[in-house]
Amino acid sequence: MADEPPLPTRRALLKMIGLTAGSGTMLNAMASLGHARQSPYTGPPDLSGAPDGQSVVVLGGGLAGMCAALELRRAGYDVTILEYQNRAGGRCWTLKGGDQIEELGGYRQDVEFSDGQYINIGPWRIPHHHLAVLDYCHRLDVPLEVFVQENHNAYLHSANHFDGKPIRYGHAWADYVGQITELLGKATNKGALDSNLTQEDTEILLESLKSFGILDKDYRYTASLDIAEYRGYPDGSAPGGGLYDAAPEPSEPIALKDLLQSRFWQYMRNHTTYRHHAPMFQPVGGMEQIAKAFEREVGDLIQYNAQVTRVMQSEDSVTVEYNAADGQGEGGQITADYCVCTIPFTILSQLDVDVSPELRQVMRALHYYEAVKAGLEFKRRFWERDEQIYGGITLTDLPIAEIAYPSNEMHSSGPGVLLGAYVYGPHAYAYNSMSPEERLESVLEYGAQIHPQYRDEFTTGVVLSWHRVPWMLGCYSNWDERGRDYEVAATMDNRFVCAGEHISYLPGWQEGSLLSALDAVRQIHERATTSQ
Amino acid sequence: MADEPPLPTRRALLKMIGLTAGSGTMLNAMASLGHARQSPYTGPPDLSGAPDGQSVVVLGGGLAGMCAALELRRAGYDVTILEYQNRAGGRCWTLKGGDQIEELGGYRQDVEFSDGQYINIGPWRIPHHHLAVLDYCHRLDVPLEVFVQENHNAYLHSANHFDGKPIRYGHAWADYVGQITELLGKATNKGALDSNLTQEDTEILLESLKSFGILDKDYRYTASLDIAEYRGYPDGSAPGGGLYDAAPEPSEPIALKDLLQSRFWQYMRNHTTYRHHAPMFQPVGGMEQIAKAFEREVGDLIQYNAQVTRVMQSEDSVTVEYNAADGQGEGGQITADYCVCTIPFTILSQLDVDVSPELRQVMRALHYYEAVKAGLEFKRRFWERDEQIYGGITLTDLPIAEIAYPSNEMHSSGPGVLLGAYVYGPHAYAYNSMSPEERLESVLEYGAQIHPQYRDEFTTGVVLSWHRVPWMLGCYSNWDERGRDYEVAATMDNRFVCAGEHISYLPGWQEGSLLSALDAVRQIHERATTSQ
Repeated sequence: MADEPPLPTRRALLKMIGLTAGSGTMLNAMASLGHARQSPYTGPPDLSGAPDGQSVVVLGGGLAGMCAALELRRAGYDVTILEYQNRAGGRCWTLKGGDQIEELGGYRQDVEFSDGQYINIGPWRIPHHHLAVLDYCHRLDVPLEVFVQENHNAYLHSANHFDGKPIRYGHAWADYVGQITELLGKATNKGALDSNLTQEDTEILLESLKSFGILDKDYRYTASLDIAEYRGYPDGSAPGGGLYDAAPEPSEPIALKDLLQSRFWQYMRNHTTYRHHAPMFQPVGGMEQIAKAFEREVGDLIQYNAQVTRVMQSEDSVTVEYNAADGQGEGGQITADYCVCTIPFTILSQLDVDVSPELRQVMRALHYYEAVKAGLEFKRRFWERDEQIYGGITLTDLPIAEIAYPSNEMHSSGPGVLLGAYVYGPHAYAYNSMSPEERLESVLEYGAQIHPQYRDEFTTGVVLSWHRVPWMLGCYSNWDERGRDYEVAATMDNRFVCAGEHISYLPGWQEGSLLSALDAVRQIHERATTSQ
Repeated sequence: MADEPPLPTRRALLKMIGLTAGSGTMLNAMASLGHARQSPYTGPPDLSGAPDGQSVVVLGGGLAGMCAALELRRAGYDVTILEYQNRAGGRCWTLKGGDQIEELGGYRQDVEFSDGQYINIGPWRIPHHHLAVLDYCHRLDVPLEVFVQENHNAYLHSANHFDGKPIRYGHAWADYVGQITELLGKATNKGALDSNLTQEDTEILLESLKSFGILDKDYRYTASLDIAEYRGYPDGSAPGGGLYDAAPEPSEPIALKDLLQSRFWQYMRNHTTYRHHAPMFQPVGGMEQIAKAFEREVGDLIQYNAQVTRVMQSEDSVTVEYNAADGQGEGGQITADYCVCTIPFTILSQLDVDVSPELRQVMRALHYYEAVKAGLEFKRRFWERDEQIYGGITLTDLPIAEIAYPSNEMHSSGPGVLLGAYVYGPHAYAYNSMSPEERLESVLEYGAQIHPQYRDEFTTGVVLSWHRVPWMLGCYSNWDERGRDYEVAATMDNRFVCAGEHISYLPGWQEGSLLSALDAVRQIHERATTSQ
């Protein structure tokens, strides 16, 4: 059965290299039940037996750096974190009223959201199978709430199709599925199927197509109350009560050729990728609650405002030099036995770092995705009250690409902040070259094509260009081909080991940061315990 | 465009009969934007101009009765509610520790859930397009949270397929969609398609099938990292970080013939019916929060413990006789100008009610669905911690039919209550004939086939048979054919008008109860204002 392949070698390996699970009971329970695990995470690593007096300097106080520090200190290592900013968390970042954003080129934006309003300008959602993130949230008391990813009532929009008017996602989805199923039903019925199915299975297939596509007795997907029960009803003609406007009316599907030409089908698996499988989660109060939870644990280890300039290695130590990032304080130098470096390769490749030529080469080669994200506050949650869109994402072929509606404070009477743009690819380069004011105007202009309420209801907004963020110079890593390069990047180089989302198979996801940090910690501990 | 048909006659009718929206601004905004409305609800009715001194007796203090009372009193009518139980809300009912359930046959169950734990034993979810329910929640300050309906990580289970082991819903869904899309791709490629599509559109169709089905360049759905990105990865082989178990492994699909024979395809539109479109909601703290909110408004009008025995009508009044439901207090008699009757037809048809022969005939004929629901408390939320199932529903061909995981307190370390059975059809009759203890044992026995943790973790549970609930004798109405019968049931009979989910096109849904109540109120107000 595809669901539960036996993996004795993996388990055996697990024991062999001594990385037994911290929560072994859970792991054993899982194994005996035969239930699938969806992540390599099996609990925090067992770092018992750490030698006395060993020290680690961690570069970067984002999630990877703080997670590494937490586990290393717990194991008895002496840890210091150097952080460029005056806040911990890195890209785990929530913008709220009173915050300031600085970008290269002297651009500065003041965030003026109302009390309690925010935008998660970096990561914004947590899959239910990101076991490390969920487990740390659990252990560090970070309350979570559901993040609505798929919303059948959100829109699909194209400037050049359906007169530029948005279509409800649920309509397009049901009509595409219904009509391709109808085509398959017809082909099957005329014996045109090229399959290995027996006659009996072919009959079950036909039955299943009727059920899945909502086809009538002649295998047609046509206007009817039956399809309305799945796609929805015409405007104002949903089932009601009593006598008044109560009887539902049949619903007319969108023609297949129009759906095909609109290319809306491109979006129809967006919410059923594994990483977006329902349900997803977000921390109550903003993604930064995860950063703050880690900071509560290891904040005392963090030296803020420390801009790393140089990393030197010897046979028995690592020395890191740093300046005051704001040019105001004192710089300094730290020597430790090991170094965990979470600085993104965009930045690290520009520093004087004493690593192998191979690692240096990989640092320079790794490309980062560009992305521009906008947070827009509106006086009124018109998407909820006028259009019944609670959370979820509208997808458009305009440069803004997405409008994502907040999953927090749904149904409230107050204002709301939505993600007004998630720009990537060539459009992001265009936005990168605009001033923040120009970007905002552009985002509002495009958004108003989908929600005409924009201009009346808008109060304040920010548009962040991740390529211009001085401590990132990009959004997240883009491994075209991993091969040997990834292995080099992820392997300890003398006493220096990298961590962060870029050192993972989950680029851009916090799970990747945490898992890479745990592996960095594993490598240090292995080295520390075997080299005694 | 199918999305937004013009409905001038509907709007015209709206104004003509004087039912202008209470929230007219919203309605106008909607109309001018051309956005779809998904319900006939346009705000509470305008009941201005009610004559002085008119009275209404409302039979039943469930949602329909309380909603009617709220609007009638607001309009100036003198209202009394007679309620059989000592609590308001009817089927809007949340069972908590300390509650007692009484059923016909002398069965009594004491609910012994831990503090804060509950089961919504009646309605348990609110669609985002049930505008009346949402608007009343908004106006009566009932906080809502997301109800997780579709969960890709919940199970599909059959006693007779896949060795009786549960399959993840997301695996079955992706593999069924992938493989039927592959079949259609093959048929299209060999020119066997029977469609009106142009050659150009047929090429777009092929491109769309690749995208929707996750097909390879040869239009095959086969084991690969590509399909793993959608269906999920093999056990323990999801993408990780660093070097340790980090590289993901390809995922092997379930064979189409096995999926067909399992009949799991029957479940694949369960979560994409219009009434289950994501997102859905539930009140924080239990569904009864809606009942409690209405009770805060109209509780002073309710006479509890009043068992209606007779309804008499004259040309100018309605008189209702009632007994003390518990046999302990005094009965009585109330005369009013009008009567809104929300007593289910299962009960009402047994009483001495002075209505037209047509209405009496309809009351007797209406069938009600049977249903048995179980709430089971477990020490530990093993479905979350062991199996990463947060909310959503497991579907099985065992008599329990469903196991639904709680959407409240997800990620908590404490106990949890899940819906251990939602039995309907012939199986419900079988459960109806069992004692509560026998039902519970059966529900645990079946559930343990899916979750072996059941026996170790179970603490306490209740199993309610709706057919044995003395004030219901059924779960919700089942209109096979509406036709003239529905019109009779929903039309005012002299001074007597029925309301409740049975007087709606949304049987079993609270939206139906509220909309029917608003229409009953409309009919009374129309009669009262025109007969002066």
